[in-house]
Amino acid sequence: MNAEILAVGSELLLGQITNTNAKFISNQLSELGINVFYHTVVGDNSKRLEEAISVAESRANLIIFSGGLGPTKDDLTKETIARHLGVDLVFDQVALTYIEEFFAKRGRSMTENNRKQALVLAGSEVLANHHGMAPGMILTKDNCTYILLPGPPKELEPMFQFEAKPKLGKMLNDGGVIVSHVMRFYGIGEAELEVRVQDILDTQTNPTVAPLAADGEVTLRVTAKAQSEDEAHQLIAAKVAEIRAIVGDYQYGINDDSLASKTVEMLQDNNLTIAAAESLTAGLFQSELAEIAGVGNVLIGGLVTYTEDAKVKQLGISQQLLDAHGIVSSECAAAMASAVRQKFGTSIGIGLTGAAGPTAHDHQPVGTVWIGIAIGDEEPITYLLHLSGMRNTNRLRAVKFTCHYLMQQLEARGYKKRI
Amino acid sequence: MNAEILAVGSELLLGQITNTNAKFISNQLSELGINVFYHTVVGDNSKRLEEAISVAESRANLIIFSGGLGPTKDDLTKETIARHLGVDLVFDQVALTYIEEFFAKRGRSMTENNRKQALVLAGSEVLANHHGMAPGMILTKDNCTYILLPGPPKELEPMFQFEAKPKLGKMLNDGGVIVSHVMRFYGIGEAELEVRVQDILDTQTNPTVAPLAADGEVTLRVTAKAQSEDEAHQLIAAKVAEIRAIVGDYQYGINDDSLASKTVEMLQDNNLTIAAAESLTAGLFQSELAEIAGVGNVLIGGLVTYTEDAKVKQLGISQQLLDAHGIVSSECAAAMASAVRQKFGTSIGIGLTGAAGPTAHDHQPVGTVWIGIAIGDEEPITYLLHLSGMRNTNRLRAVKFTCHYLMQQLEARGYKKRI
Repeated sequence: MNAEILAVGSELLLGQITNTNAKFISNQLSELGINVFYHTVVGDNSKRLEEAISVAESRANLIIFSGGLGPTKDDLTKETIARHLGVDLVFDQVALTYIEEFFAKRGRSMTENNRKQALVLAGSEVLANHHGMAPGMILTKDNCTYILLPGPPKELEPMFQFEAKPKLGKMLNDGGVIVSHVMRFYGIGEAELEVRVQDILDTQTNPTVAPLAADGEVTLRVTAKAQSEDEAHQLIAAKVAEIRAIVGDYQYGINDDSLASKTVEMLQDNNLTIAAAESLTAGLFQSELAEIAGVGNVLIGGLVTYTEDAKVKQLGISQQLLDAHGIVSSECAAAMASAVRQKFGTSIGIGLTGAAGPTAHDHQPVGTVWIGIAIGDEEPITYLLHLSGMRNTNRLRAVKFTCHYLMQQLEARGYKKRI
Repeated sequence: MNAEILAVGSELLLGQITNTNAKFISNQLSELGINVFYHTVVGDNSKRLEEAISVAESRANLIIFSGGLGPTKDDLTKETIARHLGVDLVFDQVALTYIEEFFAKRGRSMTENNRKQALVLAGSEVLANHHGMAPGMILTKDNCTYILLPGPPKELEPMFQFEAKPKLGKMLNDGGVIVSHVMRFYGIGEAELEVRVQDILDTQTNPTVAPLAADGEVTLRVTAKAQSEDEAHQLIAAKVAEIRAIVGDYQYGINDDSLASKTVEMLQDNNLTIAAAESLTAGLFQSELAEIAGVGNVLIGGLVTYTEDAKVKQLGISQQLLDAHGIVSSECAAAMASAVRQKFGTSIGIGLTGAAGPTAHDHQPVGTVWIGIAIGDEEPITYLLHLSGMRNTNRLRAVKFTCHYLMQQLEARGYKKRI
């Protein structure tokens, strides 16, 4: 199966938004082993859209459309496809009822153009939209499969993942299933990870194993084809165990996990609380943890001590220590971690200090970061990073490394960690 | 001039990266008044690339390529175009010297494939790459203009903006220039802003005026065509003055400014220092200010007081106040702002408290936010927000509103602000 992704929307051509849908769908299709040879973007113009469909049909047998399913007169994707394929548009009763209820619940009257959203291509299978009003659809005609998805990513992503993808999997695998599992690693480079699992990469068939690196993290995507979900999960479990035996120390999570979400989860599971004293990151570590809903029972708070003076006056770090070792030092990071832990009465204290850039700080080159981790009454542990990115990349990396090292230290002390 | 943007790179089709270059270039072309009718993405495959070029030539007379100019054998954009157009590739001496110096400076030996990067289409105008090794190029043949740009955004963006765009402007304007200026607004919705400047939008010719909304902010892009830069700037200045007379109260900056960068600039210009006490934002306000290099002389630090206990023990907010008014209240935000200002000895104190979501907090519905601003010894001012986004959108909006209201309050007290 060779796919083309065809996004419809003038706002893309005007540079007002980025085509993140194409990335999302491409990534999902690669899990299914479907080749994507082209992405195309065309505006809200029926003639040019139809030309783009003809071009796509000449080079793909799966065309996935995003956008143009809404209620306004600019939305003309399904109308154009209907005309192009010579099929009718018919009302889908389920979608229509859903739209009517949407308006009834809010006490608003439904305008006629909203009914239009319930029109679907005759003969298509309807894809439910649990995050908006316009349903999607999937239709196969003359050996080409057409999938129509709404434009907003929060509607498109779940619809593709949970409605369209299983159907594609069945089409591809003759009624079987395709299941993917993502292993997430930190603290190891892409090149080193690939070398260490080289034998597995070289001999992969089913499941397949695909590495991908982004934002300092590395993932391995394990994808199994089988006759049942159970069978696929068994194949995946066996391959995952093989991989873990080699590089399991670096794995922090799976699928949609993030370093921050896993850190919060581990603290919650073990009834631990945390506070942080931040210099170069200036609140970013705490803010990243606070992105996770329900963090309130583990993140008590902390301090941003951006200046030397604030470190002395607010945290009570001794001026002698700073004079002797400097602000960007192991001693300072350790003292910050201890001080904030005691001040906030938490199980764990974090201290972050360094030179984010663009210029050296405290005679330390850009990218030098010290992380201090104080666990209970133990002597704090410190880590030194030499980062090579721009100012804000360095700040974010420092936060990710903090999560990574903290989880490692907790695990080494027997605290339980879910994978 | 009708343009197509043709991105080359298998990593795009695998869903490993997003095509942000297409958005950037489209946005830049819209400033020039150039229509973009299609974006296309094709992999590192010479045959499919050449087919995509033929399709593009049939529907555009300006084709802008991104990617495939690097040293590896996957990089084949210029080789494919050269063959397709029947032109030779020749070494550009300037680019070659630049690459040789790059390696010499780092004491590394240059491999042969790196020389390849200095090959350019014969007869093309070379576009210098100040952020990487591969030069870009621009060539017009048979009434079609081909622009080749490197793939990494940090190389492509400055090369397009400062090398390619002025040349396109001259081609379009018969030797004249096209200059754009972006006005940035906050605290006013897109719809309301458009209504208020409706007469200007309806009668625009030269300069043109185009509104755009994103992330809670609204911008107006003012673009003038003229025979000289001076003349263009005069046209823009007159139009900007007209717009400011109507909605100037909401303008916070221009071009690449952000609310955080303008806040830091205003604090620096007026020798003011700031500290913050954050609850729902949990360090995000301070972290956003710290994204700006050189913030160290204005951001002293602050506290994250995520729990009620931390507000009482670390900030010294009275338990009675919290019992009487709640954590998500004007009184709490004001007390947080005052307390952190006094604790850190700064000119300004900020207090942020609210219910970010996903569930109500302190009996206040999701999206309720109180901002407290304490300036000197004055009674703190507070603002109430009712935000409607998801948890982390709400947290970021709260930070942006804080910057906006702080600048307004400072301006009202006669502190100087640059636009």
